[in-house]
Amino acid sequence: MTTVSNRPAPAPLSQLVYRFGDGSAEGQGDMRELLGGKGAGLAEMSDLGIPVPPGFTITTEVCNEFYRLGRRYPEGLETQVRDGIAYVEQLVGTRFGDPENPLLVSVRSGARVSMPGMMDTILNLGLNDTTVEGLARRSGSVRFAYDSYRRFIQMYGDVVLGVSRRSETDGDPFEELLTAKKRAHSAALDTGLDGDALRELVREYKALVRERTGADFPSDPWDQLWGAIGAVFTSWENPRAVVYRDMHGYPADWGTAVNVQAMVFGNLGDDCATGVLFTRHPSTGERRLFGEFLNNAQGEDVVAGTRTPQPILERSRKPDDLPSLEGAMPVVFLELERACDTLEQHFRDMQDIEFTIQQSKLWILQTRSGKRSGQAMVKIAVDMVDEGLVEQTDALMRIDAAQLEELLHPVFETSGKRDVIATGLAASPGAAVGRVVFTPADAVDWAKRGENVILVRDETSPEDIEGMKEARAILTARGGMTSHAAVVARGMGKCCVTGCSALEVDYARRRFTVASGDGEPIIVSEGDVLSIDGTRGEVIRGELPLAEAVFPPEYDRLMTWVDAHRRMKVRANADTPEDAERARDFGAEGIGLCRTEHMFFGPDRILAVREMILSQSEEERRKALAKILPMQREDFTGILQAMAGFPVTIRLLDPPLHEFLPQTIEDVAELARALGMRVADVERRLESLREFNPMLGHRGVRLAITYPEIYEVQVQAIIEAACDLADMGIDVEPEIMIPLVGMALELERLRDLVERTVERVFEARGRRLSYTVGTMIELPRACVVADRIAEHADFFSFGTNDLTQTTFGLSRDDAGRFLPTYLRERVMEHDPFVRLDRDGVGELVRIGIERGRRTKPQLKVGICGEHGGDPSSVMFCDELGFDYVSCSPYRVPIARVAAAQATLAERR
Amino acid sequence: MTTVSNRPAPAPLSQLVYRFGDGSAEGQGDMRELLGGKGAGLAEMSDLGIPVPPGFTITTEVCNEFYRLGRRYPEGLETQVRDGIAYVEQLVGTRFGDPENPLLVSVRSGARVSMPGMMDTILNLGLNDTTVEGLARRSGSVRFAYDSYRRFIQMYGDVVLGVSRRSETDGDPFEELLTAKKRAHSAALDTGLDGDALRELVREYKALVRERTGADFPSDPWDQLWGAIGAVFTSWENPRAVVYRDMHGYPADWGTAVNVQAMVFGNLGDDCATGVLFTRHPSTGERRLFGEFLNNAQGEDVVAGTRTPQPILERSRKPDDLPSLEGAMPVVFLELERACDTLEQHFRDMQDIEFTIQQSKLWILQTRSGKRSGQAMVKIAVDMVDEGLVEQTDALMRIDAAQLEELLHPVFETSGKRDVIATGLAASPGAAVGRVVFTPADAVDWAKRGENVILVRDETSPEDIEGMKEARAILTARGGMTSHAAVVARGMGKCCVTGCSALEVDYARRRFTVASGDGEPIIVSEGDVLSIDGTRGEVIRGELPLAEAVFPPEYDRLMTWVDAHRRMKVRANADTPEDAERARDFGAEGIGLCRTEHMFFGPDRILAVREMILSQSEEERRKALAKILPMQREDFTGILQAMAGFPVTIRLLDPPLHEFLPQTIEDVAELARALGMRVADVERRLESLREFNPMLGHRGVRLAITYPEIYEVQVQAIIEAACDLADMGIDVEPEIMIPLVGMALELERLRDLVERTVERVFEARGRRLSYTVGTMIELPRACVVADRIAEHADFFSFGTNDLTQTTFGLSRDDAGRFLPTYLRERVMEHDPFVRLDRDGVGELVRIGIERGRRTKPQLKVGICGEHGGDPSSVMFCDELGFDYVSCSPYRVPIARVAAAQATLAERR
Repeated sequence: MTTVSNRPAPAPLSQLVYRFGDGSAEGQGDMRELLGGKGAGLAEMSDLGIPVPPGFTITTEVCNEFYRLGRRYPEGLETQVRDGIAYVEQLVGTRFGDPENPLLVSVRSGARVSMPGMMDTILNLGLNDTTVEGLARRSGSVRFAYDSYRRFIQMYGDVVLGVSRRSETDGDPFEELLTAKKRAHSAALDTGLDGDALRELVREYKALVRERTGADFPSDPWDQLWGAIGAVFTSWENPRAVVYRDMHGYPADWGTAVNVQAMVFGNLGDDCATGVLFTRHPSTGERRLFGEFLNNAQGEDVVAGTRTPQPILERSRKPDDLPSLEGAMPVVFLELERACDTLEQHFRDMQDIEFTIQQSKLWILQTRSGKRSGQAMVKIAVDMVDEGLVEQTDALMRIDAAQLEELLHPVFETSGKRDVIATGLAASPGAAVGRVVFTPADAVDWAKRGENVILVRDETSPEDIEGMKEARAILTARGGMTSHAAVVARGMGKCCVTGCSALEVDYARRRFTVASGDGEPIIVSEGDVLSIDGTRGEVIRGELPLAEAVFPPEYDRLMTWVDAHRRMKVRANADTPEDAERARDFGAEGIGLCRTEHMFFGPDRILAVREMILSQSEEERRKALAKILPMQREDFTGILQAMAGFPVTIRLLDPPLHEFLPQTIEDVAELARALGMRVADVERRLESLREFNPMLGHRGVRLAITYPEIYEVQVQAIIEAACDLADMGIDVEPEIMIPLVGMALELERLRDLVERTVERVFEARGRRLSYTVGTMIELPRACVVADRIAEHADFFSFGTNDLTQTTFGLSRDDAGRFLPTYLRERVMEHDPFVRLDRDGVGELVRIGIERGRRTKPQLKVGICGEHGGDPSSVMFCDELGFDYVSCSPYRVPIARVAAAQATLAERR
Repeated sequence: MTTVSNRPAPAPLSQLVYRFGDGSAEGQGDMRELLGGKGAGLAEMSDLGIPVPPGFTITTEVCNEFYRLGRRYPEGLETQVRDGIAYVEQLVGTRFGDPENPLLVSVRSGARVSMPGMMDTILNLGLNDTTVEGLARRSGSVRFAYDSYRRFIQMYGDVVLGVSRRSETDGDPFEELLTAKKRAHSAALDTGLDGDALRELVREYKALVRERTGADFPSDPWDQLWGAIGAVFTSWENPRAVVYRDMHGYPADWGTAVNVQAMVFGNLGDDCATGVLFTRHPSTGERRLFGEFLNNAQGEDVVAGTRTPQPILERSRKPDDLPSLEGAMPVVFLELERACDTLEQHFRDMQDIEFTIQQSKLWILQTRSGKRSGQAMVKIAVDMVDEGLVEQTDALMRIDAAQLEELLHPVFETSGKRDVIATGLAASPGAAVGRVVFTPADAVDWAKRGENVILVRDETSPEDIEGMKEARAILTARGGMTSHAAVVARGMGKCCVTGCSALEVDYARRRFTVASGDGEPIIVSEGDVLSIDGTRGEVIRGELPLAEAVFPPEYDRLMTWVDAHRRMKVRANADTPEDAERARDFGAEGIGLCRTEHMFFGPDRILAVREMILSQSEEERRKALAKILPMQREDFTGILQAMAGFPVTIRLLDPPLHEFLPQTIEDVAELARALGMRVADVERRLESLREFNPMLGHRGVRLAITYPEIYEVQVQAIIEAACDLADMGIDVEPEIMIPLVGMALELERLRDLVERTVERVFEARGRRLSYTVGTMIELPRACVVADRIAEHADFFSFGTNDLTQTTFGLSRDDAGRFLPTYLRERVMEHDPFVRLDRDGVGELVRIGIERGRRTKPQLKVGICGEHGGDPSSVMFCDELGFDYVSCSPYRVPIARVAAAQATLAERR
């Protein structure tokens, strides 16, 4: 535990207390060290002329002095605090301890930064048996007054007087009394207790304090105040606060300030009110106040929804509505409007404001940047630039790149009530409603009949692609953020929830069960309707109303600015001409990853691929490859054409061959017929291809070292396609990428094979064209020997999915069993498959780039893992000097924004 | 292609030719730059007074001059070459071109280092239609003379005259004539052609040369000689040689020398002989000449084994033997004995010498360090120190650490004829003979009946341990050098061949098949006898004679020296008290890796373990763990006691839980009974534990983050065991190791758990003892964030098996499908699971140590992967500053030697 004993005595302090309120303040927004974060913020607001409830801040220097003096207050503090209270009394028009019109205050701690373990807040200080009656009369509610009083005693009793549970197994003594009281009045909720019951409870609370502390609860407001101030200072050395400081390296002599502020009430009569508003419309971004208030009410009433709220603006008022604030209190409304304008101008952002009107006087309780929809975010950003409120670059920096996702996918309307039966990983954003099916074949059949379907699987495999295409959403019990289902769904822009481990899928009975809280499991059968929220990872029973995705008209202008400011290029991962076109629409400047294996699953192709895999000689393999060649050429023609004018990085075959193998006995039989083999022999050969850890198995460049003819045919198909297009005058830029390289010699050999194959095609076609050869960097070894690999590479493309798997030794498909625990227990801050792990994986990437460019300073470097679409990771890529990022088409706009923000951040 | 044109003109050369022979030389052993490696070696031997066949070396400067002059010879060369030949003629007593007694010479290239792509050797230069008859008369064999002649024409025709195949599909034209000739004479082998046939062949060869070159084959020996010299110089710029130079960075101006040396013949009469000998006995190391010779014969006759060889020493002669060299040619013998002595003294090592006696004159053709058995190696090393021939440290540096293995395991006697039916990986050395079984249960049953069995499996799993223990050898169709079978077998010191992919195992029919060359597969059925050579990786049909392992008496002295010289400690990987004791016997100084999971497979334990795994709540799990606790305590008591006085590193549970799960329906049923669950429910739960990539799954520290109680119970068992022993006055040093840590926070959390658990035991036992907590470093991420991990670790133990897997992205269990191709095609030099990959894995290890010690300079660092027993890897560990290496007990002596060699190498 840190101690604070040996501090040198500072010069005698003079100003110990800084007042604020009534549109001015003794302190300023930049005095965080002296006034703490909260105190400085209150001073800043006051300085702006905003009517914040008045109060004063006791400085952090007093805290240090308090400890230096052995927990005593420095001379002069008492006077300055008394003067502070007098100042507040004067501004609010009430008096501390006045039986008729009492001033109540809140007392809060406030260090430079918010710090757990310290005393937080005591409200309603100043209440006693006399003042409570005044409050009751003023508010017209005995219940309200005594509820405030019992809450004050409970909070003060716990925090200041130390009346709390005696042991871990004990209950909280105040809560126990409250529960007993509710039981006695047969009240389920606190609100079931009336004024008399609460008056009794207050008596019991006070008796408890007397019994535990041997003294009466302090009834003098001044005693209450000094007790609270002392508790704040003392809490600075609470064990939890000390541990937190040590963890973050905050010195003990920062100290904490104490903020004493008037309580204001919106329920003291018809000239009172309370409300919340946004300075612009949070859904559309329209520039007008948007919010609601309640006459003669307190904040809780607005939240509770028991009374119908009233609109702020007259023009927002519908025929049956109660009066608007503008109509009912026009003077206060004007004052509020002015305050909103001031705050927006000052903070240069849309504000979310809480206010209270007490006896026709407006008080602003809180302001903060307002949460908004993706659409509103875009409109507000562009509008504010047009209004001259912010610079273009500031507007860009404020965009939450990830939130752009909302523009691209449908979402559920917020009004719908959600019966969430299970939660999984938010694998691909968006929302969808449909009937449950359990097989890809059913998905296809049902979709043909016009049904919207949700495909539910333990996990998906490449064979399921057709069914996935037809489904509105995909839900899996296993797999992580980069599992097959997640990657494919994101690529399709389709809503998906993975790793929903509560699901027990029973294919035989075509249903799944979810354990529910009350023991009876929930059963969802084929044909039942579910709503899937891929943005939140929720599985919801029944049908929720959907809101379609719309681009606001300001989007295009925003993206023009974005593109003008970014250094890094943005490409897309796309495997088909359709994906490529969509990616272009989203602004992609090329394809960073075209996976050739995804082309192999068409029903017309898979048989040839299987023949190739089961071949036992080069000759057999070449025969099967000859069937594949024209198909691949057609694929590449389509995709190169769709991306004409931009580079297209084509990754040669990567995954373990057995991914392509038949799973059902029918498929095995068909394959046996095609190969002229016995079923048993085919099965034995299939068994011999089984791998323990396919992720670390016979894949990528290893396939080509053992069977060079596979890559040879793929390269031939690419270059023939490119020649065909070039002959037609279409501009093509093929980039041939070798996956899973770990050794320089692998790339050297394969580059040689590629070049020889290309030369053969050039000779046959009588023409040449430019192309490049590069490699994925997706193994830790590739990073550390990148200098040697770079000798044979025109470009590096970091495959951060696989690199994350190998660096952590963590299979993305199996992580579902423990990653949630890691995140919950904060062993990890983020899922490393979603946000690039800077310290580990990022360090290897840094080493890889540094060494690669040591050999080739101009080496082109990109990223094609799923991280290419994550804003934080994109920023990191910019720091490391990447030339481009590549992500799924739907994430291209996000990556463009993140790339621009990275450039801007660097420039600052 | 490098060129040699712009070289500056050197000062005019004077001595272009250096002679050697007759016990002296113009050059010296240290003139490699001028004379090339071969020339310098010949000079060195001559300088020692060794009678090497005389000759001369044309210097590398001449080569440079040759190119500078546009491929012409410098002035003076012709005279000096003529003088050189005259010198040789005089020493040998023959004359170049003499029809009766012709001098024949060899011509060889000789750069500073041996270099592929250059001309190698032309033998018997000097033969023509006249001299060949003289040779025939002298040797008494027309066949020999003409066979020499036709070989000379063929070699010279190809290399010097460029008469070779015209295209890739063409055959070699000389070989085609030879084949036709054999066919005409119905001869299967070359030896089937008699003198007349060979004479005809020579005519045909010469006709071929005339047809192809338009000129007659040169009959003048001088023309032949200059042609050969020119060919050597020209070959320096052969494309292959140039590529090789470029690859190795050898400059073109090194040039090559040309060595011209007299041919000598041991078959020119009864005063001639030829033989080979070792200066000490290659099997026992005994200090006496050991070898054999043939009177009036050439070298090939000794190798061919068609004649019975004669002994060298009279005392080696058995009653029926022909005369010994000592007896038959006493003078020459003395000369030979002196030469042997000189060579051994000079090279300070046992020599393997080829000699020829031509007309009572001894010629030493070649000497090199002799290959020897492990036993001989040890004896010779110790003897030579005793004889004062070498320093202790030199003797140590000469030991081939890996060869010590021969002392520890039985081997097949070299005499046995091997019917090798398949080859796999030499996974665990030694030799064994037994009957084939296909299940671990059969291995146990058959062994009980007294049979020696060989267990053949596709692969093994932890469940097979009992059967593996009983088998003499293990043979698997899959898996690499660190597969389960390999690791367990090495630990048991049991012979094992893995990854024998030619095997197709058919469990149902209890047999395996191997495709054979002639189409008919070889079938090996249960009960058939096989011999397994784990040192070579061979599967041999039938029974080979075994030689048991013996330690020579000199072993202990050698190891005393070894231990005196090494810096690094050597520990063993051991899981049982028996292994620990064996390891101590082999000199282990502690246990570097005690795997707790191996203790869980006993039939009395596995059920409790399975109960634990299938538990769905902490409470259930704790119940199952309570059954395991006393068993684990007993395990640890045994192993700590066996290693008393030394540290014992105990790794907490590491492997994926499902490794422990039942495989058979009987086991599932038993488990269901024990758990009181339905079989179907157990099966569903088992299925939910299935992992795609178990190596990257829910294992190691991840188990403890999700189920801390598992490690808690293990730690409790360790510390209770340690307290029990300490109470008895036994010295224990437990080191608790957390596996698979990738993040500092993981270790921080677990260290905290360990410390809390230990404190609880200390309190309960009323005593304390010292222990440490450390971690495996086996993930790339752990290496790069080692500085932060080190904050919570007392030691690092590099788990290089897993680190190799993750760094390469290479599953050791699946690598068998492509690693052999990688090694065959030289994409990799070594199996990285056998020899630590310095550039990749090693670089990460380097980073890990450097960063770890940046935080904690005194951090203890060890290695516990399989590499800890590989000499090259041990040397590397020493370079990196490891404190110790740990390996399987049988490798401890090897590691001790390698560690000593590393220290000595560093000191030099």
